[in-house]
Amino acid sequence: MMYFELKFPVRYYETDQMGVVHHSNYIRYFECARNGMMADGGYPIEQCEAEGVTIPIVSVECKYRYPARMGDVLTVTASIEKVPLAKLVIRQTVSNQDGKLCAEGSVTLGFLNKDTGRPVACPQKLADLIEKRLSDR
Amino acid sequence: MMYFELKFPVRYYETDQMGVVHHSNYIRYFECARNGMMADGGYPIEQCEAEGVTIPIVSVECKYRYPARMGDVLTVTASIEKVPLAKLVIRQTVSNQDGKLCAEGSVTLGFLNKDTGRPVACPQKLADLIEKRLSDR
Amino acid sequence: MMYFELKFPVRYYETDQMGVVHHSNYIRYFECARNGMMADGGYPIEQCEAEGVTIPIVSVECKYRYPARMGDVLTVTASIEKVPLAKLVIRQTVSNQDGKLCAEGSVTLGFLNKDTGRPVACPQKLADLIEKRLSDR
Amino acid sequence: MMYFELKFPVRYYETDQMGVVHHSNYIRYFECARNGMMADGGYPIEQCEAEGVTIPIVSVECKYRYPARMGDVLTVTASIEKVPLAKLVIRQTVSNQDGKLCAEGSVTLGFLNKDTGRPVACPQKLADLIEKRLSDR
Repeated sequence: MMYFELKFPVRYYETDQMGVVHHSNYIRYFECARNGMMADGGYPIEQCEAEGVTIPIVSVECKYRYPARMGDVLTVTASIEKVPLAKLVIRQTVSNQDGKLCAEGSVTLGFLNKDTGRPVACPQKLADLIEKRLSDR
Repeated sequence: MMYFELKFPVRYYETDQMGVVHHSNYIRYFECARNGMMADGGYPIEQCEAEGVTIPIVSVECKYRYPARMGDVLTVTASIEKVPLAKLVIRQTVSNQDGKLCAEGSVTLGFLNKDTGRPVACPQKLADLIEKRLSDR
Repeated sequence: MMYFELKFPVRYYETDQMGVVHHSNYIRYFECARNGMMADGGYPIEQCEAEGVTIPIVSVECKYRYPARMGDVLTVTASIEKVPLAKLVIRQTVSNQDGKLCAEGSVTLGFLNKDTGRPVACPQKLADLIEKRLSDR
Repeated sequence: MMYFELKFPVRYYETDQMGVVHHSNYIRYFECARNGMMADGGYPIEQCEAEGVTIPIVSVECKYRYPARMGDVLTVTASIEKVPLAKLVIRQTVSNQDGKLCAEGSVTLGFLNKDTGRPVACPQKLADLIEKRLSDR
């Protein structure tokens, strides 16, 4: 499995009047971990885009388990189990500093040629990166 | 079916560097339609909260079909098919001005006693409202 | 004076744990009114960008007068007093449904050539549009 | 001077279709540094609120100097020069990894009794904290 985790505190503006982190922000946290994983792997999203491939979201699902709050330091994870062909599936979680699972879900990504907007295969650099990590562990 | 729709333009800050609306914002659009439906039904979310019940999100799923862009005027819908007991399931869509489906998904909501944080049944006013609308059509 | 106003309800995700609209969102509301004004004038921002000029923000100032809350329907205004040369200054306000002033401020915009990133004069179409409205009233 | 800085990467969802960080997000970055400073000083905002005082924004001003982009790691600073009475003024900056100043501004905060909503003096713990830091340096 290719695995990455990122730690950061809740930001005040992410809370809502229920006094907890608004549910849409977990979807954004997921993205932070995915992009952190790409950057950590040496192929940041902005380079991928500059080389002509954008990575739009195909679908998202998220189950909310426990509210994150201001003051929490969250750990957000991204895990990949298979080298992608046309689509990349990433499992994601958000936990708080007590190890309590706040949210979990999965995100499916596609790949588009930036100029034509047409679907393309996963960029070779990204596939190689994932393959290497999958075989490392 | 209880059905509601809301129309509004894409906001510039909702776009990202792919030049389209960031995927997290559809989750927020969904919420706008849900809250619009409650307000339209005479029982706005802020009144529900003031009466002691918060409505946290249990799960969200969203499939992205077609990118919304700056300049688009979106129609966001919320549909309810069953009177909720402990949980309320809402089907949701986002379409653009050409009737093109941009995103569709479903959101499951729970009900919590605001003071104790414990799960409660759907507030009677909300259940009545839904029941009335379901039988109207 | 060229004047435009836009009305829309507060969105739930815009509130924070103080129970009011987070201060950063007024800056976004300002933008909604500015872009509404351009679209209303027949020269929407996305067309301006497509024609090669982006309109970045040079500076923002905002005074917060009264909190907007969930359930409020806001009126956001944008006013221009002078045809811009290199910079465009826009006065902005946000008021609630009771006419209570929630925030007021001003935003200064610049104009950049999209390809070179260099400052340019206000696009002629935009200058004409503003000039026409200023002389109309 | 009481000084604090925080480092974090730009998040993808913070970019807009100009390809840079949307201007409203600098206002949010400012907040992150302010709240980081409070937490670092041993009196986090959530504790202050739990003890009955909220800290709403009175005014914000921000000058935009250089665009932050995806891939940038930002340093956000907050500086206080005077022990506050009724209002607290904080100078703020955002710079990128090359030391380039992206934005600078100042934020004025007030203090409200959480229950009555009426203005109060700066909480003693916060004033003490600031006073101690100001005399340390």
